[in-house]
Amino acid sequence: MKTISSLGEFGLLEALGLFKPLSGEGWLGPGDDCALFPAPKGQIAVTTDLLVEEVHFRLSTTPPRDLGYKALAASISDLASMGAAPLACTISLALPGDLPLSFAEEFYAGLRECSEKYSCALAGGDTSSSGKVFISVTAFGSVDSGKAFLRSGAKPGDDLWLSGATGESAGGFYCLEKGIAHAGPAKKLIERHLRPEPRLSLSLGLASEGLANSMIDVSDGVFIDASHLAERSNAVIRIDKPSVPLTPELLEVKRLTGKDPFALALGGGEDYELLFTAPKENRAKIKKTGENTGTAVTLIGEVEESAKKGRVRLLSGAGVEIEPPLRGFEHFEG
Amino acid sequence: MKTISSLGEFGLLEALGLFKPLSGEGWLGPGDDCALFPAPKGQIAVTTDLLVEEVHFRLSTTPPRDLGYKALAASISDLASMGAAPLACTISLALPGDLPLSFAEEFYAGLRECSEKYSCALAGGDTSSSGKVFISVTAFGSVDSGKAFLRSGAKPGDDLWLSGATGESAGGFYCLEKGIAHAGPAKKLIERHLRPEPRLSLSLGLASEGLANSMIDVSDGVFIDASHLAERSNAVIRIDKPSVPLTPELLEVKRLTGKDPFALALGGGEDYELLFTAPKENRAKIKKTGENTGTAVTLIGEVEESAKKGRVRLLSGAGVEIEPPLRGFEHFEG
Repeated sequence: MKTISSLGEFGLLEALGLFKPLSGEGWLGPGDDCALFPAPKGQIAVTTDLLVEEVHFRLSTTPPRDLGYKALAASISDLASMGAAPLACTISLALPGDLPLSFAEEFYAGLRECSEKYSCALAGGDTSSSGKVFISVTAFGSVDSGKAFLRSGAKPGDDLWLSGATGESAGGFYCLEKGIAHAGPAKKLIERHLRPEPRLSLSLGLASEGLANSMIDVSDGVFIDASHLAERSNAVIRIDKPSVPLTPELLEVKRLTGKDPFALALGGGEDYELLFTAPKENRAKIKKTGENTGTAVTLIGEVEESAKKGRVRLLSGAGVEIEPPLRGFEHFEG
Repeated sequence: MKTISSLGEFGLLEALGLFKPLSGEGWLGPGDDCALFPAPKGQIAVTTDLLVEEVHFRLSTTPPRDLGYKALAASISDLASMGAAPLACTISLALPGDLPLSFAEEFYAGLRECSEKYSCALAGGDTSSSGKVFISVTAFGSVDSGKAFLRSGAKPGDDLWLSGATGESAGGFYCLEKGIAHAGPAKKLIERHLRPEPRLSLSLGLASEGLANSMIDVSDGVFIDASHLAERSNAVIRIDKPSVPLTPELLEVKRLTGKDPFALALGGGEDYELLFTAPKENRAKIKKTGENTGTAVTLIGEVEESAKKGRVRLLSGAGVEIEPPLRGFEHFEG
C-alpha cells in the first residue's frame, strides 16, 4: 500500500496534483509564495476553523471524503452567517505518514467538491506529517460595506427565525458512536452529520434585501448560539418550545440512541443552520426568500423587551419558562 | 501550575484576552463568525503556513514567544516575496492540555509583537487541544493589480540579488541541536534562527518602483529557492560562489558545529532573505533602496542565456561549474 510518508514531506501536493491552477482575471496560483485574487468591492470576511482528530472527529466513523467536504462547509457556513459570498480558501493539512495515500486523495476530493459547489476557490495551503490528523481551513468572502449580518444587531420586537431543522447532526453523531447501520432514518441523520450544507443561498438572498438584523450559524446548538446573539445584542431572546421544528428522522433518535429529540434540536451542534432575527414587517419577504432558495424557514421565538439583558428564555407550550435540556453539544474530549 | 486544559476547550482565547478588538474604519472583530476588513484596491495575496512540533520545531529548543513571532514572520516573508503589504492574519493553534498556561500567553505575545511590527492585524483564529503543538498561520496582504513579484519573471541578462546574508539560521539551528550556549557568535546565529525578520521594507521599496523581475524568499535555501525561480521562469540561473556573502558569525559555525559555512549559506533554510532578479539598468536604484531600508543587497549571479532551461549553475571563483554543497535544509523528520 502506498502511504503518505512514501511521498516525503513536501511531495503531497505535487504528487496528487491537488492544487489546480486558479483561473480568471486577477487570480494566480499555485507556484508562488502567495496565491493572488482580485480584491472585491466592500469588505472582506475571513474565518478560520481548526479540526483535530479525536477532538472534533474520529477516523473510524468519518470517511475522508466527508471530512474534506465538512471542513470547508463549516467555514463557508461562517461566511453565510455574515451574509458574505465566498471567494477563496486555504487549507493546512497534517497527516500521519502511515495513512494510505488514498486518504489524502479522498480528503481533497471532498474539499474540492465543496469548493466547487459554493464557488470558494481552493487558493493554496500547506501540508506536513504529524502523529494525528490536523486540519485548518481559512475562508474569505466579500460583503457590501456595512451590510454584514452581525451577532449584535438583534432588536426588541424582532422575530427569531431558524432555517431548516436542527438536532439531526447530533443524532447522526450518536448513531455513528453506537455503530448503527446507515439505513432508514439513521442514514439521513448520519448524512446530516457527515455532509452538512451551509445555508448560503438563503443568507445571500436575505443579505441582498437587508432582511435580517442579526445572524449566527448553529455550530454549538440553538440554545447556545441564541445566547451568543442575546449577549452580543444585549437583548433577551425567547424561544417557544412548540415552534422548534423536529423532523420525522429526528423523532426516531430516541428509539435509535436513547437521546431526547428536543434536547438534540436545541442543544445539538454542527447543524450549520442559520439562526437570525428580523423585523416583523419582513415576514412575507423572508418566507419568499426561503421559498426561492429552497430552504425552510421557521419562526421559533422573538426578541423581547426586558430589563434583564443578554439571556435566552425557553418557554413551554403553556408559556412557562423551562430549563434548556442541554448546555450544548460536547466533543468527545474533556 | 495552571495548565491549558484547566481552561476547557473553548476558554483559551477568552481567558487570555488574546484577540483584542480590531480598530479602524471597516474593521470588525472578534465576536462574530468572521472578522471583517475593508477590501483594498488591486489584488489580495494570501499564504498559509503549517508548523508541527517535532517536524518543524522542538519545544526543548524553541521558547514559545519566539515560536509565536517566527510563525507569523514566515508568513509575512511570503507576502514580502510577492511585494505585498500585510493587511491581516488568522491563526489556528492546537496545544497539549498539560502545557502551562504561560506557554499560550508567551506564544501570543510573540505573535502580537510580530503582528504589530509589520502592521499585520491579528484578525481571528481557532484553538483546540491536541497531543502535539500545531500552528497554522494564514496571512493576507494587498498588492497593486499585476504588480506582484512572481517566481516566473526572471529574464536572461537579469542580475541575481540576495538581501542580507544566508546560512545563519541553519547555523543557529545546529547550535541549538548541539546545546551550545547562547553567547558570542552562537548568540547571533541562534537569534537569526529563532527570530527571523522578513525583508518587508526592502520588498515594498522595490515594489513601489517596480525594480525586480522575479522574487522568492529563502525558506528552503538559496540553491533550492534559486532552482524554483529557474524552473518557473524557464531560465538558467548562475550563482557565483565568491559573491555569496558569509558573515563573520557564520564563519565561526565550523568551529562551533563542524558544519561548512558555505554549505549553510547556500543550502540552509529559514533565513527569510529575499532572492530576486532584476534588469541590470536597475542596479543603482536597487542599491539605493537597500540603503534607504537598511538592508544589505548583494549581487550573487545572473540569469544566463542558455538552451538548457530551468536549472541553477554554481560557479567557483575560477569560473568552473561545481556541485552545490547541500540539497537544502532538512527538518528533523523523514
